[in-house]
Amino acid sequence: MVYLDNAATSWPKPPEVLAAMERCLREVGANPGRAGHKMAIAANRLVDETRKELASLFNIGNPDRIVFGLNATEALNLALKGLLGPGDHVVTSSMEHNSVTRPLNTLRGAGVKVTKVACDHTGAIRVADVAAAVRRNTRAIVLTHASNVTGTVMPVAEIGRLARDRDLVFIVDAAQTAGVLDIDVTNMHIHLLAFPGHKGLYGPPGTGGLYVAEGVELNPLKEGGTGSHSDLPGQPEILPERYESGTLNTAGLAGLGEGVKFICREGIEKIRRHEQELTRQFLEGVKSIKDIRVYGPCDASRQAPVVSFAVGERPAGDIGAILDQNYNIACRAGLHCAPDAHRTLGTFEQKLVRFSFSRFNQPGEVEYALYCLREIVEKNIPAPAGGGCGC
Amino acid sequence: MVYLDNAATSWPKPPEVLAAMERCLREVGANPGRAGHKMAIAANRLVDETRKELASLFNIGNPDRIVFGLNATEALNLALKGLLGPGDHVVTSSMEHNSVTRPLNTLRGAGVKVTKVACDHTGAIRVADVAAAVRRNTRAIVLTHASNVTGTVMPVAEIGRLARDRDLVFIVDAAQTAGVLDIDVTNMHIHLLAFPGHKGLYGPPGTGGLYVAEGVELNPLKEGGTGSHSDLPGQPEILPERYESGTLNTAGLAGLGEGVKFICREGIEKIRRHEQELTRQFLEGVKSIKDIRVYGPCDASRQAPVVSFAVGERPAGDIGAILDQNYNIACRAGLHCAPDAHRTLGTFEQKLVRFSFSRFNQPGEVEYALYCLREIVEKNIPAPAGGGCGC
Repeated sequence: MVYLDNAATSWPKPPEVLAAMERCLREVGANPGRAGHKMAIAANRLVDETRKELASLFNIGNPDRIVFGLNATEALNLALKGLLGPGDHVVTSSMEHNSVTRPLNTLRGAGVKVTKVACDHTGAIRVADVAAAVRRNTRAIVLTHASNVTGTVMPVAEIGRLARDRDLVFIVDAAQTAGVLDIDVTNMHIHLLAFPGHKGLYGPPGTGGLYVAEGVELNPLKEGGTGSHSDLPGQPEILPERYESGTLNTAGLAGLGEGVKFICREGIEKIRRHEQELTRQFLEGVKSIKDIRVYGPCDASRQAPVVSFAVGERPAGDIGAILDQNYNIACRAGLHCAPDAHRTLGTFEQKLVRFSFSRFNQPGEVEYALYCLREIVEKNIPAPAGGGCGC
Repeated sequence: MVYLDNAATSWPKPPEVLAAMERCLREVGANPGRAGHKMAIAANRLVDETRKELASLFNIGNPDRIVFGLNATEALNLALKGLLGPGDHVVTSSMEHNSVTRPLNTLRGAGVKVTKVACDHTGAIRVADVAAAVRRNTRAIVLTHASNVTGTVMPVAEIGRLARDRDLVFIVDAAQTAGVLDIDVTNMHIHLLAFPGHKGLYGPPGTGGLYVAEGVELNPLKEGGTGSHSDLPGQPEILPERYESGTLNTAGLAGLGEGVKFICREGIEKIRRHEQELTRQFLEGVKSIKDIRVYGPCDASRQAPVVSFAVGERPAGDIGAILDQNYNIACRAGLHCAPDAHRTLGTFEQKLVRFSFSRFNQPGEVEYALYCLREIVEKNIPAPAGGGCGC
């Protein structure tokens, strides 16, 4: 299997990730922060170690401002619903994932006003358009760091400055960029950073989290046992407990810590160069295949290692199914849980095929994928029986 | 280490659980329900397999009515906040965990009325008292299946009948009983069953879920990518997607499936007998140690394999620290995230030491624990420097 679906979840994981998870389950199975015994303290230490690794990666001063949850979606729900209330206005883009658009849709029903700034046909946003959308009652800007459809990198640093200057809370969805691009919450003026553990950070699924800047107060999404301050009727004020209720994914977080260490050891710049090179190779190669239209910046330096394309007028699901069943290539065809983005690109009906690369992909795999696409186009290979899933 | 903290998380796990997690991460790392390719389909199959195992265990007709999340706390938050709104009244007990009392505390702020039925000094509730608490606007009863402090088993079947007769939604917190006691949602008339994956079901931490009966409509706690019906502005109507947003803990759920299979293979009755025997052994042995007071039913057949006790007037945290540091016994001392329960028992100030047993504990460990407790009392062993953590 040639795995080009790393934007959904990265695979494979570095072997250290699996080893750490197994060690955690075998040796320190206990519940962190729930008791004073040696195993519980060891479990706590593992989780806190991961917090520290992430804090260092994202330039977060206090690791306890990172709260863990099931995934980036949970983090975004906590950020948006925890922050915004009736009468608030929020500015977002037309390239967001459903993990932003759907919570905003619910909040709209609760009296929050939402402005979606239109992006261009490459998925790019203009900072001036964001600035123009800010109103007197604007509370926050929420933006993806890079589109999960086109990979388009958003001008997060500039918009961070705008947010700072206008005294707005800046929420960034780093689903496609955590571990992939440099993220510096301090210098980028990011107040709330939602990240998945299982994509560019090479941790296992079931991990993700939210950085909450000092001074930003959120209503918790969940209340429950926090292992400390158990006598209080509500959640404790202190972080991370305030936003972490119930048992964490201890083993998964131990694995995530190893994923982050792997990135730091390899060097994020080196990984970025490798992924950028694969993206460039694909973008270059695909140009010569007639009938394939790539959407997005078509410039490896301006996108995450994510490329989406259409083949003639053929439904994307058919191409995805052919790649899977005839060529053993795992990719993702469909709307990518981002219908707004597809509307922006004009691909809502046909949908798109997405390739996404990781540190572990090799140039030979890109070459093979190009070869397959050329054959599909030239021989007009039909979709396998049962057709494709375009979800 | 003698591990007697299974009510926090069970340890060790059956080896098949770890093997399934590793196999999932190594071979089917992809994101379930997010693409049509073979690896994604394999991931989906693993998760659905676990749904089926759980449905069979709990006598749930349609496995898709089980939704997965990070832990039982998330499931309880979804159940309570998803169901209850301003003007609703809910009946609960005075023995609940913070995973019930804290969401209810928040809901109270939003106009939900809450009646806490007082339990007796053994943690037991009278069905007549629950019936008497029901009002015209009562919407639901929420009850723990067994106290996480005293192990007291609640009369869930009787209260289920009451709920059915009075047309109330019946919410059960199975944190201490899933995999430990028989749970039959159909015959017990349970509408919403919250369960952790990592305690009596022997799965890894980071897993848990909620069974949602046909006809019960909840507002989702989280919205986001569901991998299907991506074009909708809000969550799809169908389950499990409606309540499952973002990437699931695929590997963890694969492990959980093996945990449930382990239980079914061993036989839940056989596991129950073993755990009941350990509980009985401890209750019997502790009687002859002067100055130790056990709280709860003191009858292994009427409690989950959880026993809490006080040693004279000594703070529970001190005893927990001595057990850990002098004797290498992992237990849990403190309020157990259940301050209401401790108020009911009259142990809010002193707190309690809790022992909890699993399938993997052996009579020799109980004997050792009794020996240590006797020594602590007879020699009046002092707390180690630094003292105990009573969380």
